[in-house]
Formats: sequence, structure tokens, C-alpha cells
Amino acid sequence: MTETMYGANTPRAEATRARLVEAAIAAFAEKGFHGTTTRDIAAAAGMSPAALYVHHRSKEDLLYLISRAGHERTLTLVRNAIAVGGTPVEKLRLVVYDFAVHHANRHTESRIVNYELAALSPDHRTDIRGIRQQIEAEVRGLVESGVASGDFDSADPRMAAVALLSLGIDLGRWYREEGAWKPEDIGERYADMALRIVGAQQV
Amino acid sequence: MTETMYGANTPRAEATRARLVEAAIAAFAEKGFHGTTTRDIAAAAGMSPAALYVHHRSKEDLLYLISRAGHERTLTLVRNAIAVGGTPVEKLRLVVYDFAVHHANRHTESRIVNYELAALSPDHRTDIRGIRQQIEAEVRGLVESGVASGDFDSADPRMAAVALLSLGIDLGRWYREEGAWKPEDIGERYADMALRIVGAQQV
Repeated sequence: MTETMYGANTPRAEATRARLVEAAIAAFAEKGFHGTTTRDIAAAAGMSPAALYVHHRSKEDLLYLISRAGHERTLTLVRNAIAVGGTPVEKLRLVVYDFAVHHANRHTESRIVNYELAALSPDHRTDIRGIRQQIEAEVRGLVESGVASGDFDSADPRMAAVALLSLGIDLGRWYREEGAWKPEDIGERYADMALRIVGAQQV
Repeated sequence: MTETMYGANTPRAEATRARLVEAAIAAFAEKGFHGTTTRDIAAAAGMSPAALYVHHRSKEDLLYLISRAGHERTLTLVRNAIAVGGTPVEKLRLVVYDFAVHHANRHTESRIVNYELAALSPDHRTDIRGIRQQIEAEVRGLVESGVASGDFDSADPRMAAVALLSLGIDLGRWYREEGAWKPEDIGERYADMALRIVGAQQV
């Protein structure tokens, strides 16, 4: 990712870049990628547009950075949950719980990560699609292995995997901190629903 | 809704308004509400910005029109499915099937309807939220009645209803015509999954 970023690698430059990323997340979430100007982002970070260009070539560069970090975090989360869990039931419960809690906690960032893919440059989009395919493959593989071992009963593991991911991703749209449900409540319920969706034996 | 629209009620004026709505859907879907100008919409409809104002006061007015029509269509679809179905199982199967097929077929419009609510004026947002609450209440009521009759086994009908709606809504994000699944394939599978989510007896 270093080739997409300018500027020195001093702690101060790091802090500035982090501030720009936070400002970009807030601006994209409020007005969408196309409705946001680099001027908006710079102003929110308390910088001049020229100062922004020292750190990022363009707002698309910022979007890519946010998108890539978000997708990599999710892929790691999914892989960790599968590695830690024991049986297919335990693994799926953990994946769906962690995925839901993550999307509720980071719902603002999640909207940008999931709904602004079309705004990425073709190369960046291909790159992000690759990570998304890996996330889907992990979840699909888990459902398939559960079917193979007789722990799950699913006629279409691929579509089941898409549905399981949809539940978590859509939290970015509807979850709000002021609502009655905590991320962990949703995680628990969604894990129960996920086991039902794949036809897990003990549910 | 008439007070939000200008212009004569001649067939020609109707056709022009329909063309503007189509142009607005395409523009909002591509660039988001905030990234779209009234000039973009007018140009896509082959009109001058001044001609647009004869029919719509603002682009927010167009967004509201699209959003309101989309939500009313969905509410009608949900109510019809519940009215037509017999048992809770049949009703739920029909609601989820129709809801999924609708969101896949109209995925472009669905993205605007579901992801641009924050761009509506406060009054319009309140109005649309009212319709959304009715849609949710219909689905939640159906799950609750199935639990009451012993047809379903759901620990949290409210969250189950939210999850069922999420599956359909998220189709607006990921469904593409060129994919392997037809809307009807997804509708069938999602109806099966929905019955599992609510713990329907015969699944």
C-alpha cells in the first residue's frame, strides 16, 4: 500500500494521515464519494487542500485506503474465527457473531466499504473484489465443509454464504448506537439464525 | 403527492415526469444523491434545467417521489402476499419470495430507496420512515402470529423480521443481471431460509 501514499513516515505524518482517513470516512458517509470534495475532507481535518495532496494523490486514493483496510480487517476476522472455532457449528457461530459485531460497531465505515465500490478506479476495484472473493470463499468453504461432515444440511452452500454475509453487511445500513440492541445482542441472535439457515443439527 | 409536483396533468406532462424520474434514478444510482446535479438529471432526460423545474421543485423532490413510490410499492407487495397466503408458512414464503424478486428486479432503484434516506428533507424522511415502519410491522406481525399459533419457533420475532428484510434489501447492493442466479431462484432459496430463520415446523 505504500506506493499509494506520499509523505514521510514520521509519527507526525502518520497522525496526519490517520486524521485525513477519519475525515474522509465522515465526509463520504455523509455525502457519498461523488458528493464529497477534497476540500471538504481537508477542511474537516483542519488542513488546506494542498496539504492533503502531500499525503494522498486524490480522494479516490483515500477511498481505496479506507476500503482496503476495511476489507483486510474483515478477511482477518473471518479467518481468525474459523481458525479458533472447533466444530463447524462453533466456527460458524463465531464467524457470524464477529462479523455482525464488527459491522455494527463500524457501521459508518462499513457503508463506505460496501456501498462505494463503483467509485474505485478499475485497478483498485479489481484488488478489492479479490479480497471480497476471499471472504466469500472462506464462509462458503465453511458451510460446504459442514455439509460434507454432516453437521449442516444446506441445498445451496453458495447462496447460504451470500445470505449470511448479507445479514452482517446490511447492519451498516440500519444499525445505530441509539437503538435498543447492542452489537453483541445482534451477534448472538444472528449466530443462532445462521445455524438455522445452514440447517445445523443441534439447533 | 400532487403538492410536490408542478405542471399540467396532460399525458405529455405525465410522460415528461416519468422520463425525469427514470433519469434521476440512473443519476442517483451512479453518483449518489449529493454527487448528482439537477443539470445531470435534466441532461439525461434530454431537457434544460429550467424545463426540469416546471415539473419538480428540486432534486430532493425527485428523490422523495422515487422513495415514496418505491416504499409504497413494497408495502403493497408485502400486504398482498400476507393477504393471499393461507397458513403462516405460506404467507411467509410468499412475502419473502416476492420481496426478494422485487429487490433483485429493481436493484438500481432499490439502492436509492434504501441508501439515500439521509438525503431527504426532515418532513419527507418522517413520511418515508412511517411507511418503513409499516413494512416492518407487517413482517414482524406475521412472525409473531406464527409463533402464537405454534407454526414458528422464534425467540425474537422483531430481530427475525429485521433479518428477513435485510436479506431482500441487500440484494439491491449485490444483485446483477449478468450473475448466475435469476431473481426467482433467489426468491425460492430465500423463502426456504426464511422458514428456517423463524423455526417453521415443516422445514
